[in-house]
Amino acid sequence: MMRDLKWSKTEKQIAKKAFEKAYERECGDLAKKIQSEAEKIKVPPDIWRLQHFLNKKVREIDNKYDYRYSVLILMFARLIKDGWLMIDDLKGLGQEKIDRIAALLNS
Amino acid sequence: MMRDLKWSKTEKQIAKKAFEKAYERECGDLAKKIQSEAEKIKVPPDIWRLQHFLNKKVREIDNKYDYRYSVLILMFARLIKDGWLMIDDLKGLGQEKIDRIAALLNS
Repeated sequence: MMRDLKWSKTEKQIAKKAFEKAYERECGDLAKKIQSEAEKIKVPPDIWRLQHFLNKKVREIDNKYDYRYSVLILMFARLIKDGWLMIDDLKGLGQEKIDRIAALLNS
Repeated sequence: MMRDLKWSKTEKQIAKKAFEKAYERECGDLAKKIQSEAEKIKVPPDIWRLQHFLNKKVREIDNKYDYRYSVLILMFARLIKDGWLMIDDLKGLGQEKIDRIAALLNS
């Protein structure tokens, strides 16, 4: 279980920093996509298309960035899989945590 | 009551054309606002702000552009009030209809 993991003060700082880094990266990427889609609006249905795209992405981000220690390992594995974080961004976390993340990445 | 008004074939064509003109204008204006807001995105909360703005505007447009003959007079009055249509765009409608729209505009 992920819930049994203890997070030291340093690990919490590393986790928080990695979380914020991934969040900034993903939101920055989304901002660029919104700008690109907005520029392409030519007819009214393009507005509705952008609305659906934006709502979907915002919902995804809201669901994904869940900073509870019980789900942090799963979230980091997903962020790495999706390309928003590298395992190196988590350097300093205990080996057990890194191993669990690596195991999820290989699963 | 608005429901008692009869619409001739010509009046229906004029109404439809005015409806589409206002819709194109308002959507075109919204597209420009979206592009301008998208360009201003600097931090993640700006994305959420744009999402709320877009959802609100799309809901407003969806509610407003209601092409039922029973509400057409009310809709045209509102479109003129909001600046998306001019009374001249409705030239060719029967005088009774024009009078009712004018009465709504002065109310």
